[in-house]
Amino acid sequence: MDRERALAIVKEKLTEHRYIHTIGVMETAIELAKRYGADVKKAELAAIFHDYAKFRSKEEMREIIIDQNMAQDLLVHNTELWHAPVGAYLVEKEAGVTNSEVLNAIRYHTSGRPNMTLLEKIIYVADYIEPGRIFPGVQEVRELAKQDLDKALVQSLKNTITFLLKKNQAVYPDTIFTYNSLVTGGK
Amino acid sequence: MDRERALAIVKEKLTEHRYIHTIGVMETAIELAKRYGADVKKAELAAIFHDYAKFRSKEEMREIIIDQNMAQDLLVHNTELWHAPVGAYLVEKEAGVTNSEVLNAIRYHTSGRPNMTLLEKIIYVADYIEPGRIFPGVQEVRELAKQDLDKALVQSLKNTITFLLKKNQAVYPDTIFTYNSLVTGGK
Repeated sequence: MDRERALAIVKEKLTEHRYIHTIGVMETAIELAKRYGADVKKAELAAIFHDYAKFRSKEEMREIIIDQNMAQDLLVHNTELWHAPVGAYLVEKEAGVTNSEVLNAIRYHTSGRPNMTLLEKIIYVADYIEPGRIFPGVQEVRELAKQDLDKALVQSLKNTITFLLKKNQAVYPDTIFTYNSLVTGGK
Repeated sequence: MDRERALAIVKEKLTEHRYIHTIGVMETAIELAKRYGADVKKAELAAIFHDYAKFRSKEEMREIIIDQNMAQDLLVHNTELWHAPVGAYLVEKEAGVTNSEVLNAIRYHTSGRPNMTLLEKIIYVADYIEPGRIFPGVQEVRELAKQDLDKALVQSLKNTITFLLKKNQAVYPDTIFTYNSLVTGGK
């Protein structure tokens, strides 16, 4: 699917703010794919569609998580996690994207998972550092992403976990497992 | 088993520094047990024996973890975690402590576990705040322990996780699961 067609599909599903974010993720993902030798077209496509399900209702997402037998612990964790696996499902079903690498990059772009592929890492990090992001610590991750993608990923996971701890919110197990797999060398 | 006999047994197994720490944990655990309505004698016994296996060799502990079919993920995590479950095993086998509540308080005093019992929480927190402890954040947990044991426990877990993140070390899953169970209300 070419860029224009993909962007036209997601534009209808997103707010203007979220569409601008998506363009930022796309540009950043392309840059990272070139830097680290990933497939640029797959990175572009995954980035464009990564937030496809962001504005679906909680009810619809909950139903899909149950019906499609996704990880059921999602249901007891932050609903912010849901749009990623639900997005992967809907992007295949509604937009006809079938490449499993692209779908997995969408699926794991919020939680991470142990042993992430290069493409999954690129989408996770691009989502974290795209130019529109302005939270504390983002500049450090931007700098790391120029030198070492795994270091950028570890730092973004650490920032996310620390942020959740400060807010007394639960940490999704896969996020810790991803961090653990990276710092113990299982990349 | 009375206090003198228990102390005489552990004294042989510990350095002087660790024995003084044990006395501190014992006194703190007794205080917390009185404050929160736990069994004072069980708290005393668990505190006295909590570090019983602290100075066993890694080889011996590894063997026990494997032979006794303990959680095998211990083997890929920090060896500092090992003395707690191994201690519970050896305290029963060598010192003849058979009370399962006491043994579980020893078993989970380093990792925590979801849905900890009152006694388990007391030993975990007492180990963290006994008077000899001087690391950053300990005073805050001491103050919390005077008012709300769960809040003290959550704060000590958060401090531990943050410390591990800063050192780029893996976080044992049960530690996160314990934190999650407390902040999501599953106490």
